[in-house]
Amino acid sequence: MNDLMTSGSAEKPGFASDYMEGAHPEILRRLAETNMMKSSGYGTDAFSEAARDRIRAACDAPGADVYFLAGGTQTNAVVISALLRSYQGVLSADTGHICGHEAGAIELGGHKVITLPNRDGKITAEQIAAVQYAWWRDENREHIVMPGMVYISQPTETGTLYSLEELESISAVCRESDTPLYLDGARLAYALACPENDVTLPDIARLCDVFYIGGTKCGALFGEAVVIPRFGLIPGFFSIIKQHGALLAKGRIAGIQFDTLFTDDLYRRLGENAIRTADRIRSALREKGYALAWENPTNQIFVLLDREKAAELSEYVELGFWENIDAERCVMRIATSWATSDEDVDRLIELL
Amino acid sequence: MNDLMTSGSAEKPGFASDYMEGAHPEILRRLAETNMMKSSGYGTDAFSEAARDRIRAACDAPGADVYFLAGGTQTNAVVISALLRSYQGVLSADTGHICGHEAGAIELGGHKVITLPNRDGKITAEQIAAVQYAWWRDENREHIVMPGMVYISQPTETGTLYSLEELESISAVCRESDTPLYLDGARLAYALACPENDVTLPDIARLCDVFYIGGTKCGALFGEAVVIPRFGLIPGFFSIIKQHGALLAKGRIAGIQFDTLFTDDLYRRLGENAIRTADRIRSALREKGYALAWENPTNQIFVLLDREKAAELSEYVELGFWENIDAERCVMRIATSWATSDEDVDRLIELL
Amino acid sequence: MNDLMTSGSAEKPGFASDYMEGAHPEILRRLAETNMMKSSGYGTDAFSEAARDRIRAACDAPGADVYFLAGGTQTNAVVISALLRSYQGVLSADTGHICGHEAGAIELGGHKVITLPNRDGKITAEQIAAVQYAWWRDENREHIVMPGMVYISQPTETGTLYSLEELESISAVCRESDTPLYLDGARLAYALACPENDVTLPDIARLCDVFYIGGTKCGALFGEAVVIPRFGLIPGFFSIIKQHGALLAKGRIAGIQFDTLFTDDLYRRLGENAIRTADRIRSALREKGYALAWENPTNQIFVLLDREKAAELSEYVELGFWENIDAERCVMRIATSWATSDEDVDRLIELL
Amino acid sequence: MNDLMTSGSAEKPGFASDYMEGAHPEILRRLAETNMMKSSGYGTDAFSEAARDRIRAACDAPGADVYFLAGGTQTNAVVISALLRSYQGVLSADTGHICGHEAGAIELGGHKVITLPNRDGKITAEQIAAVQYAWWRDENREHIVMPGMVYISQPTETGTLYSLEELESISAVCRESDTPLYLDGARLAYALACPENDVTLPDIARLCDVFYIGGTKCGALFGEAVVIPRFGLIPGFFSIIKQHGALLAKGRIAGIQFDTLFTDDLYRRLGENAIRTADRIRSALREKGYALAWENPTNQIFVLLDREKAAELSEYVELGFWENIDAERCVMRIATSWATSDEDVDRLIELL
Repeated sequence: MNDLMTSGSAEKPGFASDYMEGAHPEILRRLAETNMMKSSGYGTDAFSEAARDRIRAACDAPGADVYFLAGGTQTNAVVISALLRSYQGVLSADTGHICGHEAGAIELGGHKVITLPNRDGKITAEQIAAVQYAWWRDENREHIVMPGMVYISQPTETGTLYSLEELESISAVCRESDTPLYLDGARLAYALACPENDVTLPDIARLCDVFYIGGTKCGALFGEAVVIPRFGLIPGFFSIIKQHGALLAKGRIAGIQFDTLFTDDLYRRLGENAIRTADRIRSALREKGYALAWENPTNQIFVLLDREKAAELSEYVELGFWENIDAERCVMRIATSWATSDEDVDRLIELL
Repeated sequence: MNDLMTSGSAEKPGFASDYMEGAHPEILRRLAETNMMKSSGYGTDAFSEAARDRIRAACDAPGADVYFLAGGTQTNAVVISALLRSYQGVLSADTGHICGHEAGAIELGGHKVITLPNRDGKITAEQIAAVQYAWWRDENREHIVMPGMVYISQPTETGTLYSLEELESISAVCRESDTPLYLDGARLAYALACPENDVTLPDIARLCDVFYIGGTKCGALFGEAVVIPRFGLIPGFFSIIKQHGALLAKGRIAGIQFDTLFTDDLYRRLGENAIRTADRIRSALREKGYALAWENPTNQIFVLLDREKAAELSEYVELGFWENIDAERCVMRIATSWATSDEDVDRLIELL
Repeated sequence: MNDLMTSGSAEKPGFASDYMEGAHPEILRRLAETNMMKSSGYGTDAFSEAARDRIRAACDAPGADVYFLAGGTQTNAVVISALLRSYQGVLSADTGHICGHEAGAIELGGHKVITLPNRDGKITAEQIAAVQYAWWRDENREHIVMPGMVYISQPTETGTLYSLEELESISAVCRESDTPLYLDGARLAYALACPENDVTLPDIARLCDVFYIGGTKCGALFGEAVVIPRFGLIPGFFSIIKQHGALLAKGRIAGIQFDTLFTDDLYRRLGENAIRTADRIRSALREKGYALAWENPTNQIFVLLDREKAAELSEYVELGFWENIDAERCVMRIATSWATSDEDVDRLIELL
Repeated sequence: MNDLMTSGSAEKPGFASDYMEGAHPEILRRLAETNMMKSSGYGTDAFSEAARDRIRAACDAPGADVYFLAGGTQTNAVVISALLRSYQGVLSADTGHICGHEAGAIELGGHKVITLPNRDGKITAEQIAAVQYAWWRDENREHIVMPGMVYISQPTETGTLYSLEELESISAVCRESDTPLYLDGARLAYALACPENDVTLPDIARLCDVFYIGGTKCGALFGEAVVIPRFGLIPGFFSIIKQHGALLAKGRIAGIQFDTLFTDDLYRRLGENAIRTADRIRSALREKGYALAWENPTNQIFVLLDREKAAELSEYVELGFWENIDAERCVMRIATSWATSDEDVDRLIELL
């Protein structure tokens, strides 16, 4: 096995994604420490309950329902199914994760994703209101999928951030029309750790109807924590999770991980490492005259490269391919994470 | 956290289920050892490929497709959806896991579970053929759900085993009618380790069209390995898994676990501990004059108890409640596992 | 075309089913009379509104929502989907139409049909309460499909009738647990016209949450009228119908038919012809010493015949095959309808 | 009833849609003539078989499978479900009927509608090939919905026509990639009757894998004839139709209608009336200086009007509202049909 691992790409500094390693060592330590303790299944264990309490505290939402699921696509599919009536669809930026890269999971659940053109990966309260209004005014609206909820991501799929003001506007529009607002926090740690960010966990809990705190891309082996600030909002949610095959038998494994992530501020500290190292890379890129495809303050950097330069770099470091611009140029993604070391950043900067 | 764990039920010897602990220590060791290595996602990593090769070898099925999913309900839902056409249903014993305890996951996927009365938790080739024949002969068959595949479990939900002869008969009936045979191996380790068992992994690979080797209940943190002996049987299966939200981002975590389970015969050894300790308990029960609700040779014991006695015992050991027989008697389940210690068995026997 | 029609089975007296002809002539007359009038689509026309008003009056339910759909399977699928949450199933007699002869339409919509053993084609309030109670008391109920609504038929699939007392008991059990009660009235005309029947349309409207008045099998070209006595019970039902492809573009065609059926008591008169002719046949059968497979007072007669006799009879009249009892005997169905003539009954009786 | 009909909008010349009347009188005559003949159900009757043969002959497709369904949304949903694997989506112009006005019926069936920007309501072979190629080249294609079939309409939703050359190109691209091509012919009569049209029924049967010949909007009470030129292409299609609640019990009613439509060239003659009257209106509009929102040669005219003028006109004739352009202008739809009389056209022209 180790032989396999020393050949291939693993030896190169890796910036292809933020889920290339196992878990933060503290998580593994806790899993080992608790390993032979016995507990009941399906998230009814004391570890999971402890994790829920820590998350409630961090969100300043003492009455919140909290559930642990295995991954992001699954979480999006289960939450969206649970919130929508059959004839409703979900509003999303056209760059939203549910639009393109989930293999049709939302449609499998019977729902249309109604896309809005993004601006910097985001949508606005005005856009949402306009779609709702157009639907409502259309004489044929009963023949047209009703916009039944709103999906946003923080940070977005392009690494940008909603400001508190933007989030408050969106929330206000949603509340006015009794439309649930759902926030995908797959990389939430990397938003929370940003100096530019002014949206806290309590803000999210106050302004959203459902959201999830990502574990898979933020230091856990796997796992996302779904938070429903107003308890009881989704009747039968436990059964819905089970029915979707999304209920972990050994729920404790997720519970222990989130309990660890929300102990001693680990979730924030994990995020800070990613942001600090991303900022080092961003500075170096600017200094060396590289252009970014677009600006964003989180752990993903989208850099414009000559395709030749991209190929050359890729021999020594692992980058993520994003898209080709034209015959000569492409956008590559450089992702940092809780696991990014300064040594790897040094090597990357040297190579630039 | 430790405080939480020392109070409550965790201190009692636990026989309520076979997934009360974390994972076999060797799995945790391997997770720790490989933790900071980088790898690609979604099961494309070298750890997962190594695990696939070990499973192919153990099944004597060098061309098999192997996929890792997170849990049993999910696996059943994804495989059954992938195998059936929309107007087909799945044949199962009425005790089958997909009938009762999966919250309607198969129906959510659009399919009827066509139940057959079980005998010792099993169904027979004759029953399958009879249903197929009745459907075929019915003038209105196009108005009736077509039996499109067969679902069995080894061991069954009541702990019994299909013999090789039984499995061969079922397989022959299925092959004759081009009906896929799917075997749920959630507790397969406990079947394979049974002296009474005469069905090997290569037999299963030879006789079934799809099956899964259970990890969650057999020593892993989570995870089931779906094996499709004839590669390419299910076009697009990777996308189907993704679309169902069942694709693990860090596929390596499942890969490392199965690589470990199939190294140095660990999967068999895990099973043997469960069977050995279950046999000790069965002997003690017989000696002390208890009646079993039914006989079976695997890791679950179903014992008939006075409800009073059951309540008394439950103060000192954790048992699984199965069902009430009448006002006085009930069936309790005693489950052993890879983690069951002889000390706990000793304490249980003393208490009987 | 006429040649085709004079050869083949059409010349024989036909008792195979109650939908072998077109429509009651009065319906055709009204369709012709209104043919060139213009109206808006999708049931928003004045004909449909007039029909709704007549149905509301006949049901003594002035606030009822009424919708017209094309057929029975479609109606059952749409109503059941609209009433259930994803993790709920529908309770039905094992003889219920949704169990066997709808090709899995309910499961396609994501729901399990939870079957109860029938007695004379019916289920009881006690059975319903027992299943609800068992579900509620089961510790694992969140892993088990919740009984979310009750499906019954009047008359049942075996031609029997619920008495008012039985229906009131069922309704009471359902109301107590806030479980919608849905009645399938595919052949409702034939129940309402029975002297033995003591359940009126206003009773049904008072005791059920949703029901449908069958047109296809009771004199219309096609069409079923869904009645929701408490208006607004199902938000978005129009869109749900459309989304299921069950919305008729020229809704007027259904509207005109139901307007006709509920004018001058036609629906009752249609039923009476079927019951009167069925009673003539039943008397003749008894006189001639035939045994009925079971008794029922509606338009379907289930007679026990030697298979030889059945084959002989079938050369001269069209009967419906129901099932084989053993190598020698079978059950044949004799169905009368609004269209059954006394001449055909005479010929059948002669042949017996 | 007649009172209701003489008040309200019915008295005005009606150009709001092409399904405002009942059926062509010849259809009603045939329904009346055959009304009391007995026949078997579900499309197994001789009327339906005769209609199938006429359609096979008209399409020069002697081996075609032909099925009759009740309406367009239903037909689209059933055919698309039957053709796609779960992880595939359907390519359509963004103006396609399945995109906007079917209340999410395709998504309810589990599939994404992948939209392409239309040009004159149409898509091109080049666009289709480009999407297929982009999907195929994307490293992450297994995470992205696969374009699994192509949906087009003839005439399109904006009344335009595919030329034979365009259709041949699209068909060639589809065949090369083994992608089924499906043509929605809701208004096919109005395409076939156009002098500008060079695509015949045999062309469509030769170039498409599935298509439907519309009845509802072309002179029938209801009904669409699905044609599958290569028989056996969709195994189990009868059961799929039944399972979707789309199987007509009295299939003969659809059969008789299509038998009539394809006797003595009625389907073509119906179309010609619509085109002739539409052309009269188009000429008058041009003469009087009105601008069309876009050109098309079929039975729908999209005219640009001052909103004031539109309101004024609507007092005397029924027009269809299409969309507002700005504060002053809107697009109104004028639809002719088999039922449009020259008197109504005269009155409309006078009012312009």
